[in-house]
This record gives sequence, C-alpha cells and structure tokens, in this order.
Amino acid sequence: MLDLCLLGTGGMMPLPNRYLTSLILRCNGKSILIDCGEGTQISMRENSWNFKPIEVICFTHYHGDHISGLPGILLAMANADRTEPLTLVGPRGLSRVVGGLRVIAPELPFEVKMIELTEPEQVLELAGFRITAFRVRHNVVCYGYTMEILRGGKFDPVRAREQEIPLQYWNPLQKGETITLEDRILTPDLVLGPARKGLKVTYVTDTRPVAAIAEHAEASDLLILEGMYGDPEKKSNAKENRHMMMQEAAQIAVQAQPGQLWLTHFSPSMAKPKQYLLELQNIFPETYLGKDGKSLTLDFAEE
Amino acid sequence: MLDLCLLGTGGMMPLPNRYLTSLILRCNGKSILIDCGEGTQISMRENSWNFKPIEVICFTHYHGDHISGLPGILLAMANADRTEPLTLVGPRGLSRVVGGLRVIAPELPFEVKMIELTEPEQVLELAGFRITAFRVRHNVVCYGYTMEILRGGKFDPVRAREQEIPLQYWNPLQKGETITLEDRILTPDLVLGPARKGLKVTYVTDTRPVAAIAEHAEASDLLILEGMYGDPEKKSNAKENRHMMMQEAAQIAVQAQPGQLWLTHFSPSMAKPKQYLLELQNIFPETYLGKDGKSLTLDFAEE
Repeated sequence: MLDLCLLGTGGMMPLPNRYLTSLILRCNGKSILIDCGEGTQISMRENSWNFKPIEVICFTHYHGDHISGLPGILLAMANADRTEPLTLVGPRGLSRVVGGLRVIAPELPFEVKMIELTEPEQVLELAGFRITAFRVRHNVVCYGYTMEILRGGKFDPVRAREQEIPLQYWNPLQKGETITLEDRILTPDLVLGPARKGLKVTYVTDTRPVAAIAEHAEASDLLILEGMYGDPEKKSNAKENRHMMMQEAAQIAVQAQPGQLWLTHFSPSMAKPKQYLLELQNIFPETYLGKDGKSLTLDFAEE
Repeated sequence: MLDLCLLGTGGMMPLPNRYLTSLILRCNGKSILIDCGEGTQISMRENSWNFKPIEVICFTHYHGDHISGLPGILLAMANADRTEPLTLVGPRGLSRVVGGLRVIAPELPFEVKMIELTEPEQVLELAGFRITAFRVRHNVVCYGYTMEILRGGKFDPVRAREQEIPLQYWNPLQKGETITLEDRILTPDLVLGPARKGLKVTYVTDTRPVAAIAEHAEASDLLILEGMYGDPEKKSNAKENRHMMMQEAAQIAVQAQPGQLWLTHFSPSMAKPKQYLLELQNIFPETYLGKDGKSLTLDFAEE
C-alpha cells in the first residue's frame, strides 16, 4: 500500500490556497518528499502528514519554488525529534545549494546525506522505494522521478517441494531471508513464483515534453505532470521558459497509459485550471486536475 | 498617515492560519518589512500588500522563523519588476546569512544593500522612516525596532515676516527647500513652527524583558511585543530560551504607555491565545491579541 498527497500545485510563487508544487509518498511507515518550496511544511500540517518519517527528499531542480521550503522542513523534522539520517537527492550542485540554505538551519539532530545525480538516468534504492531519476529538459538541469514499490512473487509450495527445500526453511525464505546450509545456500527466489506487479508513480515538472517522460512513466498507476498553462496563446511562453502545456501533458499520458494523470505546477496567471479539463479528458480520459491536498492510496492488485 | 499589517503571528513554525511573525508598514508609498519567515509572501498576497514598494527589510535576528521567507520575497519583488535598490538591515552576520539564502535567488533586477548593526543602539533614516534599532536579550544577538514618521512644524507666516523672508520663497521653504541668496541662506526652519507629534510604532520579539524595550517604546502609538506563552507554567521555558511571557509584555506596556499593545509570536503549543486576554487587559487595558492580517492606519493628530 502506498499513500500519497499532492501538497501543493502552484508554480513560481505560492498563492493563497495554492502552495508550491510538492508530492509526498509513504510506504511501510517511511516517507519521501519530491520538491519542497515555501509553504510545504504548512501544507503537510494541513494534510496531517508527519515530519519524522521523512527518509528522503528528491529535488527536480533548484529554482526557488522547488526548494525554498527546505530549511523549514529540516527544522520541523528536528522539532519532531528525528535522529535517523535523511537522504537528499538532486542534480549536481545539491551540496552547494543545501549548504547555502542551511545557514539558517546549521544544527540538526540527524545526519544529512546527499546524492548528486550526474547521469542522464540513475536508479536508487531508498526507504523501500526503487527511485529512477531521469533527466528532462528545463532551462536548468532538471530530473523527473519514478517511484516504485516492487512486489516479489507469491509463495509457491509446489516449487519449494521441487527444489527439495526442507519444510522448516519455507517460512523464513518466504519472508526474504537467505539461509546458508553446509552444502547449499537457500535464497527466497527458490520458493517464490514470478515477481508480481508492484506500484508505480511518476512525477515530472518543469520541462518541455521529451521522449524520456513517456518511456519512464509507462504503465504508472499515477502520472503527475506539469500543466503550467492551458491557454494556447501561452505556448510560446512555455517553449521559451521550458515549461509544459496541459495539452502536451495529456498527450504524454496517451503514450504512457498511466492509471491516472494528475496535473500540477499551475502558473499563477491561471486562476481556474478547471476550464481546460474537458478538453484534456478528450485527449486522455483519465486526466484530473491536481489540487492542494489531493490524496490517493494505491493498493497492490489482488491475485 | 502610516498603514501597517501584522502579516503573521506565529513563533518557531508556521501553522495553518498562523504564519510566522512579520510586520509590514507603509508611508508615502514606501514599505518596510520587519522579519519575513516562511509564508510571509503568501500572507502579503492574502492581505493585498504589494511587493514592489518594499524599500527596506529589517531583521530582528537570524533564526529561521524570522528570515526563511527572504528568498521568496526577493523573487516576488523581482517578479513585480522592482528595479530600485532594496536595503536589508540586521545584526552582524547579515551578509553571510543573505549570501547563503541567495543561492536560490542569485540574480535580481535590483541592487541589495546591507546595513549590519554593530552598536547597542543605531539610528537609520530610510524610506522616509526614522528607524531606531536597539539590542534586546535573546539566545543570539537580537534587535528591537522603533519606526517613526517625524512631522515638521506648521507654516508660520508671522515668523516668516519677522525673519524678513521675501514672499516668493515662502512656498518653496514650506516644502522643505533650502534657498541660497547672495547674502543669506534660507532654510525651512525659518518659516516653520516647532516640530509636531509624528507617528511611532515599536516592534520587539524574541527577548527576555529588558529596560531598553520600555525606554524605546515610550509613547508609541502602537507597541507590538512577543507574547510567546501565557501559561505561568511555561515561565521557566521562556527564561531558558530567552522568550517573553504575555504578562511580561503587558507590564512593559504599563511602563511605556503606548496607544495600544498588540501581542504576537505565539508558541505553536498555544492554540488559543485569547484565553489570556482578560488577565492581560487587567494589567494594561489597551492590550489586544495579534492575529494574522490585523491592520491599522495611524493618522497624524490634528492641530
């Protein structure tokens, strides 16, 4: 089970009732934030998310609207008595940017680890998630993220018997343990069927449409994309500043076929994103507009 | 005329419906901010204050809750097409702290000037205000601020005649011009009566009670003081972390006799500051609780 909440849906600047775009995900009691602009900590409180379980914060890029809330989040985590390390992930420059911002949060009761992304695509295993960062196209280096909860195969007693696994090891193997015997090493895959479908969420903002988005987003349960503008007259603006139109986002969803598409990172100039919804659903029917506090629980498929 | 708005009233961390403590003042189209924690820019939008006219930002000290909103304010001012210089004022360390935070707001269309306070008391003339910064007692160096709009004397034709000022210079002198004649320099004081009562606002937060507060606050039209806690059981906490009790703030008002006392910088643990109001008004009758968006217009006394 994966819980998530779109903490904000604003681009560029926070507005009353529209915090800066940020996503929080939680699985097995561990949380990951993607981006945290000014106000993210307020939205977390409004939506009843705790600071202590945040294990990882991923940054798409370092424009102020995506990271200005970091000092506040760090101080709130300290205040929530977190002592376990926190891992920050983002493009090159992470330690320089975090070092600058921490001038007002210099002392924390937890270690801050940093992973700087240097490749066009990088896979990390953190907090129980498989995180794939992939480079997109903004006016500074920017990454999209796919967050996956993988799911192993089902226990298969027929297989276990075929492999001649003694009965006493079935349960520990099923739980993922590896057992070393005198003449043999027993690994969980010996008693499990093929891996089952897990959960997949893809989050991409501040970019022109590029092929990597649909490739990585393929078959996501939820795809969250930037929908900076809806008005076709703003397209030259979007191109110039390397942002994405809502209609372009919907076209990407047509290729990627996610369970749902949510749009976010709305321009402050767009007072009512909803006016474009019907047009977008004509492109990709499962399109929804993001809204501060919009939440979802994804469950593993039964089988 | 001086307009002001208490943009937030929270201490330590912003809460839903309680942004971090910050005050904005405006006179003759020029604005001054005191402190700007995370969320100040949102509160400015909610309360319809513009970013462009901000001439000065004064900082009491550099704990995150008093300055974490600075990058957002700078970006919002840039976005509002400000090109005139901005002056920042604060204790020693200002350029180091601002330099750190500006890692996410490196390019601005206006110059950022900085004045670091080094004396126990310093007087500055900025944006039409006379600003007196005075050191108070927190667990880091911290200043309180008195903001005054001075008011010159009334035009006095009897005096002008006595001083034998030719009629053609009365009007320019009255407007503050100095006129150099062949044998004489004419200054505005030659045609003006004694200075009249101006407007005075004092703002002090994050400190134990010290004598300097009442001294500087004397006869303020409005005194805004920290009221971190109301519960007497929190007094040791207040002492330890160098904060002020609401009751202590009211006692200071008894000495300083301001027109009104507003309390701000409430602890996140204090859900209902209002429960202490009657007790406080028994100490100083003109005590009011600060509230996000609480505004006031001060007018010069008629005479």
